[in-house]
Amino acid sequence: MEYKLALIGFGNVARSLAKLFLRKEEALKAQGITFSFTGISTGRHGFAVNPAGLDIRKALELVESGQSINSLTTYHSPITNSLDVINHSAADVMFENSPVNTQTGQPALDHIRAALNLGMHAITANKGPVVHGYRELTALAKSKGRQFKFESTVMGGAPIFSVFRQTFPLAELSSIMGIFNATTNIILSRMEEGESYEDAVKYCQSIGVAETDPTNDVDGWDAAIKVAALVTVLMDTPITPQQVNPTGIRGVTSEMIAQAKAEGKRYKLVCAAEKVDGKVTASVAPQLVDASSPLYGMMNSSTGITLRTDVILDYSITLSEKPGMKGGPVETAYGLFADFVTAAQ
Amino acid sequence: MEYKLALIGFGNVARSLAKLFLRKEEALKAQGITFSFTGISTGRHGFAVNPAGLDIRKALELVESGQSINSLTTYHSPITNSLDVINHSAADVMFENSPVNTQTGQPALDHIRAALNLGMHAITANKGPVVHGYRELTALAKSKGRQFKFESTVMGGAPIFSVFRQTFPLAELSSIMGIFNATTNIILSRMEEGESYEDAVKYCQSIGVAETDPTNDVDGWDAAIKVAALVTVLMDTPITPQQVNPTGIRGVTSEMIAQAKAEGKRYKLVCAAEKVDGKVTASVAPQLVDASSPLYGMMNSSTGITLRTDVILDYSITLSEKPGMKGGPVETAYGLFADFVTAAQ
Repeated sequence: MEYKLALIGFGNVARSLAKLFLRKEEALKAQGITFSFTGISTGRHGFAVNPAGLDIRKALELVESGQSINSLTTYHSPITNSLDVINHSAADVMFENSPVNTQTGQPALDHIRAALNLGMHAITANKGPVVHGYRELTALAKSKGRQFKFESTVMGGAPIFSVFRQTFPLAELSSIMGIFNATTNIILSRMEEGESYEDAVKYCQSIGVAETDPTNDVDGWDAAIKVAALVTVLMDTPITPQQVNPTGIRGVTSEMIAQAKAEGKRYKLVCAAEKVDGKVTASVAPQLVDASSPLYGMMNSSTGITLRTDVILDYSITLSEKPGMKGGPVETAYGLFADFVTAAQ
Repeated sequence: MEYKLALIGFGNVARSLAKLFLRKEEALKAQGITFSFTGISTGRHGFAVNPAGLDIRKALELVESGQSINSLTTYHSPITNSLDVINHSAADVMFENSPVNTQTGQPALDHIRAALNLGMHAITANKGPVVHGYRELTALAKSKGRQFKFESTVMGGAPIFSVFRQTFPLAELSSIMGIFNATTNIILSRMEEGESYEDAVKYCQSIGVAETDPTNDVDGWDAAIKVAALVTVLMDTPITPQQVNPTGIRGVTSEMIAQAKAEGKRYKLVCAAEKVDGKVTASVAPQLVDASSPLYGMMNSSTGITLRTDVILDYSITLSEKPGMKGGPVETAYGLFADFVTAAQ
């Protein structure tokens, strides 16, 4: 079957996704899947719609050289925003990668509603709509015979949601614990090596993992929205990042870290959630861990999660730092790609 | 749908499986699945066949008090071996848990062939038929519209095969590395604490993880057959434990371990396989690892695997030791149960 694809958001991750589709073209064909891109919405480089399939290599080239993609549009009426792209792309699948809005989940929520209502699968790396619309969007998708998928929202593309949902049938999840935010883990790792907090933040900004304003990471909000997404989906209990009420790492001083190191311990920004008698408690806060903890060995950009169920105790998934390899966008793109292949099967 | 189940082998794991079915009866019903046990073959407590459903609680009680289950048979002709049970149980699913035969895969191979030919799903925790019959049995299952599944053969019930096969679509596996044998890991961990090799082996025998003759574990054969199973299935390249040609831990002395410890290192029985240009190399051997290795922190009965693919680098799954909890048979039983639920869906 031929799939027409719309890309809402065309930043690093979405462009990596487009390249991954090109790289996996033959493997997809072997599964009976062909594809074309029929709509692209970018933040600063315009919009393109061509229901017959647009030149994706050209779109990549234009955006990566700072030019607009408007010229690729063949559609008869003007395309001026993401909803225009969704409405006129005639796509079968929409990939939503607009910037995260922790508070409201918008505009991603509206994009996904529109796509599902038009009978598209909706696949996102955006945590906002998961936290703010999981039940509504899942029900909407079901009513349309389509899927709402979001593997890339946590641990950047590494299978987590699908592992629990597909390979732990009828298991009951009693707790999760992990490190979900790479930026703070890099900062804490570098502070242990003697770097100051300020310099560690600057380092993270220099390699592109932290924003100019690092609040979202260092105050624990990125971790909190990931906890909220996991609890909402895997524990079937909707909670918000505000309810997780995170404590960030600003209170962890170099002195505290040096003292911990002397005692064979480390501070980690620990994400945790537990379900007891149907009631969920969730938290994000710096905690001291020792070598007996699975979190102790996760340094720098490594992230990981431990799942405890009624049938398999303490099953951990770790995505290790790859020294010298900046896997980020490619791995996140793979999460979106895997969601697509699963939805297409 | 009602599923009739046959249990070939009724040791710790199979009895845990029967209890897990009873515990999950309501959850299965919610999925539209009911079940009855129609055949049981034991090593030393006889055979039972009742195509209308036998009293599984009674069977558990009889075997656990050392009595024969022959009296539960209602079948009109004598039932004297496992193939009789398979042939006359009218089962939809056969669980194969006979003892492992590393060299030939028998008699499990014949049991699985018989079950598939009768139109049953075949689910096993036995590594023998995976290594000695994966392609044949998979093709046979496919020709009958049934499934041959074996999640519990590696890392005792924790999802590994299903994780790669279901949640990494179109990914290419380039290498695996891990610790697959708990007994040797316990021995090496205890030797690091100063215990002698002989006492550590005795300890493993006392808690039931090592056999009277520990050869299969300490000489690396258990690890090697697991490597062979993973390579055969996940790298689609049949190899035997003999080709893995393992080196065990007998050559690792207390002095070597103490010296490594002084240097911040540890010996681990490292299992590895790599696929380069379509050619697989696989090994099992003691190796020195330092704190930067994901294997360093896996102590005692912890086991784990690291998967490296073309899309997600170094994705690790760890099953942690649970101090004070003897999870073994229950977890292995869950792997069989999960295979059943997946096959039934």
